[in-house]
Amino acid sequence: MQDNDSIQRQGAGSDGHVRIPMAELQALLQRIFERHGTSEDVAAILARNVAEAQRDGADSHGVFRMPGYVSTLASGWVDGHAVPVVTDAAPSFISVDARNGFAHPAHQAARALLLEKVRAQGIALLAIHDSHHFAALWPDVEPYAQQGLVALTFVNSMACVVPHGGKRALFGTNPIAFAAPRADAEPLVFDLATSAMAHGDIQIAAREGRQLPPGHGVDRDGNPTCDPQAMLDGGALLPFGGHKGSALSMMVELLAAALTGGNFSFDFSWDKHPGAQTPRTGQLLIVIDPAKGAGANFAQRAEALVRAMRDAGQTRLPGDRRYQRRRESLASGVALSDADMTMLRQLAGD
Amino acid sequence: MQDNDSIQRQGAGSDGHVRIPMAELQALLQRIFERHGTSEDVAAILARNVAEAQRDGADSHGVFRMPGYVSTLASGWVDGHAVPVVTDAAPSFISVDARNGFAHPAHQAARALLLEKVRAQGIALLAIHDSHHFAALWPDVEPYAQQGLVALTFVNSMACVVPHGGKRALFGTNPIAFAAPRADAEPLVFDLATSAMAHGDIQIAAREGRQLPPGHGVDRDGNPTCDPQAMLDGGALLPFGGHKGSALSMMVELLAAALTGGNFSFDFSWDKHPGAQTPRTGQLLIVIDPAKGAGANFAQRAEALVRAMRDAGQTRLPGDRRYQRRRESLASGVALSDADMTMLRQLAGD
Repeated sequence: MQDNDSIQRQGAGSDGHVRIPMAELQALLQRIFERHGTSEDVAAILARNVAEAQRDGADSHGVFRMPGYVSTLASGWVDGHAVPVVTDAAPSFISVDARNGFAHPAHQAARALLLEKVRAQGIALLAIHDSHHFAALWPDVEPYAQQGLVALTFVNSMACVVPHGGKRALFGTNPIAFAAPRADAEPLVFDLATSAMAHGDIQIAAREGRQLPPGHGVDRDGNPTCDPQAMLDGGALLPFGGHKGSALSMMVELLAAALTGGNFSFDFSWDKHPGAQTPRTGQLLIVIDPAKGAGANFAQRAEALVRAMRDAGQTRLPGDRRYQRRRESLASGVALSDADMTMLRQLAGD
Repeated sequence: MQDNDSIQRQGAGSDGHVRIPMAELQALLQRIFERHGTSEDVAAILARNVAEAQRDGADSHGVFRMPGYVSTLASGWVDGHAVPVVTDAAPSFISVDARNGFAHPAHQAARALLLEKVRAQGIALLAIHDSHHFAALWPDVEPYAQQGLVALTFVNSMACVVPHGGKRALFGTNPIAFAAPRADAEPLVFDLATSAMAHGDIQIAAREGRQLPPGHGVDRDGNPTCDPQAMLDGGALLPFGGHKGSALSMMVELLAAALTGGNFSFDFSWDKHPGAQTPRTGQLLIVIDPAKGAGANFAQRAEALVRAMRDAGQTRLPGDRRYQRRRESLASGVALSDADMTMLRQLAGD
């Protein structure tokens, strides 16, 4: 109730939006996760992740995902109480069994050990398997760059992308995220699906009835289509950038699944769990300490690269739009549509 | 002379080609490198690299590159006698100063230590700086996969790619290469420029007077062009896949240059060294031992992925064409055009 009061004090925007303080959004999301079958620890981690995506304007991975989380938990497909098992496999290699839980608690359980290893060894790897990753990927790497480290991560998802030259969906949208520190500004961070479009964006386009440009996907017969609903109804996405994006997507399957011991994107089926939406796969993180090498002034070099990119006419850097939205959200509250706010209240049982 | 006799015994093809045994091609190339200013050790490493590219049908990085190597050595821009300095920077981090020499001898000088670290630590990193990489990138990673390891490498080059949304060339063609072992076949290997086309292929298209499809580059005024010569004459290439390829190219600058201590692609100029063609930059290699984690059966998993890709209709895998050409070359000799053979003989002073 207190949450709702606060929300209303922020006032509804003239365009059917409200703004809600970040902490209250997190608390509301945490109540929803706990109410729908996660432990308190898992709820806190996922609530923060979803709230951060919403805060940064990553609409396809913000509160938009909550019904998917809830229906997945209700289906029994994922264990919201799973306690990950961390194995110190080698001096620079950590393996985590997520025990059919979400990827983020598994990552969190190994984070301190990973940081210790990176600082000592120069590079370290975190391999998570039997995990469900249903979120944006940039929040997994940005914190490392905030600490002066370089981070790279790969996660595979569910079969919805046709390999280049192929006829049937096999790869996931298989994103790659990268973060690097800058001396005088927020880190350089990107998060890119190796599909022509992120799955969440296809879903949003379908919901809004928008057509997509050519080259994004095929229908159930394998024919090119611009209709996002046809891609979702038995059709599939295409990789970005033709054979190159397809090769990168293959690499993500090998790194996030084969190397971690997780499922490939085509290795599992949730047919017997109606409502389940999360892929049960794996995730790989590689974190590097640039202070160890001849590139000890890494953050200054990154700053020089940014200046050169601006001088060459690149007006928007990867991450710029997110940081802008983040500043607005922290100053004025996180924007939510009235419809999303209603949905969250229903999920919270308010 | 012996070389020439052997070559002639192979007989000229009806299409103006000869076939030459791999060992003889390597010996001929080694003589050329030594004659034009490299040490015997450097010559052996580069000759093998160029011969392997030619053997595998990688025309833009085979003997086609020899005049560029020779004119670069003649210009004094690169030190063909450089002895790289290897620093054991941390348990999983090796730094190599190539001392303004080629990247391959620097890599070779650290290879044994890198393998030792990977087997002990699970993952290790090799950061090379002040190096000249003028070759295909896949030969740098394939040998690790032949030994059951997973390898990833990044190298930046010279400013010839306009960042997405920018107006001037800044990034190099900045390739990424990846190799992973398979249980029952040659490794899965790809090597992709993050530009819309590799620089060598642009040069070949220009030489042959071919126009390129739209979306590959701009002319000196920043306008889109399909003329490869206009891209080379003050114009520039575009990244592959729009903003995603551009983000990956930025990542390559950060990993191969900022992290290693090497030059960015825009950090150097060879203006005072007429004939010089090699970029003086850096290279990063990351090698992983999959046996350390829960993915210990990596090569079998990779095999399963390949079967699934074939079942999904992907008829050609990354590397397939190279392996096919390699088999032909090892059986019948490496194919060279008559013009290339003449060029090599001239460079060798035969």
